[in-house]
Amino acid sequence: MALRVYNYLTRQIEEFIPLHEGWVGMYVCGPTVYDHAHIGHAKTYVSMDVILRYLRYLGYRVRYVQNITDVGHLLDTGEDRILKGAARERMEPMELVEIYTRSYFEDMDALRVTRPDISPRASGHIPEQIELVKQLLARGHAYEADGSVYFSVESFPGYGKLSRRRVEEQLEGVRVEVEPGKRHPADFALWKRAEPEHIMRWPSPWGWGFPGWHAECTAMSTKYLGQPFDIHGGGVDNLFPHNECEIAQAEAATGQPFARYWLLAGTLTVGGVKMSKSLGNFVTIKQALERFRPEAIRLFILNGHYRSRLDFTEEALEAASGGVERLHSAVAALRDRLRAADDRGEVDTAWAERLAEVRARFGQAMDEDFNTAGALAVLFEFTREVNALLASGASVNQATLAAIDGLYRDLGETVLGLIPDPLPRQAGAGLEDALVRLLIELRQEARQQKDWARADAIRSRLAEIGIILEDGPEGTRWRLGR
Amino acid sequence: MALRVYNYLTRQIEEFIPLHEGWVGMYVCGPTVYDHAHIGHAKTYVSMDVILRYLRYLGYRVRYVQNITDVGHLLDTGEDRILKGAARERMEPMELVEIYTRSYFEDMDALRVTRPDISPRASGHIPEQIELVKQLLARGHAYEADGSVYFSVESFPGYGKLSRRRVEEQLEGVRVEVEPGKRHPADFALWKRAEPEHIMRWPSPWGWGFPGWHAECTAMSTKYLGQPFDIHGGGVDNLFPHNECEIAQAEAATGQPFARYWLLAGTLTVGGVKMSKSLGNFVTIKQALERFRPEAIRLFILNGHYRSRLDFTEEALEAASGGVERLHSAVAALRDRLRAADDRGEVDTAWAERLAEVRARFGQAMDEDFNTAGALAVLFEFTREVNALLASGASVNQATLAAIDGLYRDLGETVLGLIPDPLPRQAGAGLEDALVRLLIELRQEARQQKDWARADAIRSRLAEIGIILEDGPEGTRWRLGR
Repeated sequence: MALRVYNYLTRQIEEFIPLHEGWVGMYVCGPTVYDHAHIGHAKTYVSMDVILRYLRYLGYRVRYVQNITDVGHLLDTGEDRILKGAARERMEPMELVEIYTRSYFEDMDALRVTRPDISPRASGHIPEQIELVKQLLARGHAYEADGSVYFSVESFPGYGKLSRRRVEEQLEGVRVEVEPGKRHPADFALWKRAEPEHIMRWPSPWGWGFPGWHAECTAMSTKYLGQPFDIHGGGVDNLFPHNECEIAQAEAATGQPFARYWLLAGTLTVGGVKMSKSLGNFVTIKQALERFRPEAIRLFILNGHYRSRLDFTEEALEAASGGVERLHSAVAALRDRLRAADDRGEVDTAWAERLAEVRARFGQAMDEDFNTAGALAVLFEFTREVNALLASGASVNQATLAAIDGLYRDLGETVLGLIPDPLPRQAGAGLEDALVRLLIELRQEARQQKDWARADAIRSRLAEIGIILEDGPEGTRWRLGR
Repeated sequence: MALRVYNYLTRQIEEFIPLHEGWVGMYVCGPTVYDHAHIGHAKTYVSMDVILRYLRYLGYRVRYVQNITDVGHLLDTGEDRILKGAARERMEPMELVEIYTRSYFEDMDALRVTRPDISPRASGHIPEQIELVKQLLARGHAYEADGSVYFSVESFPGYGKLSRRRVEEQLEGVRVEVEPGKRHPADFALWKRAEPEHIMRWPSPWGWGFPGWHAECTAMSTKYLGQPFDIHGGGVDNLFPHNECEIAQAEAATGQPFARYWLLAGTLTVGGVKMSKSLGNFVTIKQALERFRPEAIRLFILNGHYRSRLDFTEEALEAASGGVERLHSAVAALRDRLRAADDRGEVDTAWAERLAEVRARFGQAMDEDFNTAGALAVLFEFTREVNALLASGASVNQATLAAIDGLYRDLGETVLGLIPDPLPRQAGAGLEDALVRLLIELRQEARQQKDWARADAIRSRLAEIGIILEDGPEGTRWRLGR
């Protein structure tokens, strides 16, 4: 059994063999931090997170690098996203970057996405990008024009190898800026001249300017992972032009291959259409988290294949919430039994076999290009068996219960990030609620026994603690009185 | 009434008048991220936080910049702190930086220290530092030697203006590296040549190297705040050589003054001596937070003057914990009364006067170089009056209670950061604990009435919820069984 991945570079399923045994270098294109992250980001980064988690679960040491784009990402209109955001919020660009970088990591932490080992910023790697441009100029793959430097796509025969577009096709559907001095319309900027009023600019051999968006990912991935490195991930939206340009820059500059496996996540739509602010179907991660718990959002994403398109609907999220509930309540019941169990003994033979089988089938699914939907199906089928076992009243020894729990910890949590320990409190089912309900029952019993003094004492002592009981036709409810 | 501050530059108390009306630029030297932050950092950054909070409370718009030193900070031995840490933990330097930067902000968030508006990294501002060095070379204040560039202290008459040391005194107690090509022993490195095995290095006009530690703060403060700017803060430990060198670099490079007010926090000792790992008296913020709540650590710090030396002792922290407890329980009682109050009416005249007086006295203390100890004394004296009012049984209307609460919110929370809303749960006095204690009492009563069935039912139903009762000679204790 070996891990096989779909490599966008070859458009084939291939066995995954890292360059250095046991060690994986992985780079993922990170966000442009000019606004709060949306659920499309959740899809990309939860998908990449599970790839990372599975690699680590398999025993690989992974260095995971994910950048922060805080300069140079221009819109089709030629406007700088960061500067546009800074103008909108009337602040210094780096203040804006600070706010949205923090917001991004808050969202990722909430979604239980593993932090990158290194999260380099584009603005923090200007010298590295200038070096890259100098190399490309020296090797004849770039030219300077009017204080900017462009990559010459015709100089690099490999251009188009990832997107499989010929140069003449590449311009279709892409707005091409009219830039003085650009020799071919498909050529792209490595360095852009900045006017004096442009706030984010740096000195360079070509005058004051700022790097083209694609330069950062080439410079930072190879700085921290070497060249070539193993895995380049991200969203498939960036396949062209961004990822294509990254390859061209890296390979033209050094003559060495760039990334060996390209694993790209499919896009997310909302109600069947592309998310956009103007359509009013734009959902931020913070908005989604107000309504659904993090594990539900993860399960929703992992129920699809990472490469596929996924549609965000109310129904799908509610179904995922139900799935998480089933998983959590089975594990909660299992752990209750485990805590109560105190008999010694070996793992039951039949269960040991079944656990090995479940682990193997889960691994088979994951080994086939991270088929999380298949892996989840295995986990849910197994959960039905666990529920049946717990409901049957059959005696199960501690070792067996612990082995079942171990499977949930490894597959459900370590790999998929769905079963935090401790489990999240059920809404309205927390310890406080359980304690107050017990007190309400004791008061009810006292009343039935016509022990009014005891019943009243319970009510008044609860009031002292700050809990108000309200008797109504549907029984007694409680609320916090302070 | 006006804010007056002690300016280290003039060694005098001066009225604070910002350069641009209503707008303050403030820079504070941040941590070198090669290890977890210690309580000395807590003292510096809580002190600076309250200065920032008070300025904002006064209505200033403050841009607060605090750097992250992730390169170039050499030990007296000439070793790079980051590289030494990375070697210790066997990782890529930037992985180490990532871990400890995150750890630092976790600690600061826990201590309720306001985040900087911009937290620039030294490694992210190499071009800016190179520009600075080029300017100094062009103006004859620096010279190149063997791939490194040094600042010539004799070329800048203002050198020593902050620390008030003459050049010949400056070398006392400071270990001077023997560096080939250095013309005067007090000259300091602006740029250091890096050997090929040095991982953190960048190309420059003088070959591959890295910036001297002092360069970053000059380059980053002026980039984001302009030159001159209003306030330079930090710990007084860095007065010499670091702050002195920052001034020399900035002023020699441009002929303009650098920072206008220097506000420096005194050092923290532990048990009367300087904290050091070898002495075994090194306390990280995480360790301190395991034992004391964040507000207790803040109160302990604010009970001294920010410029003074402060000694961290068990007793002082316990006293501070008691102080926070008094403050929180008064505010909790006040808010209980406020929630229960429903009468209309104006603020009681006598209380309105008293509140204005308290605010004025608090402000007078803070206006005198941020005399937080004096401000706290005002708040605690007022709290005794509030406690007396609440205990007296006198009727107080809603408006008056709300006005008292407003004072706590403004002075206790907005300025000092001591009274979060909601208030933290008391240790061992939370709602859960109160509920379980009530159930233990009910069980005890049942036992006294020899109603063993009822007593046992309470115990077993608690066990179902996951709470285990343990009867012992000192009474019944409880713990979570799940």
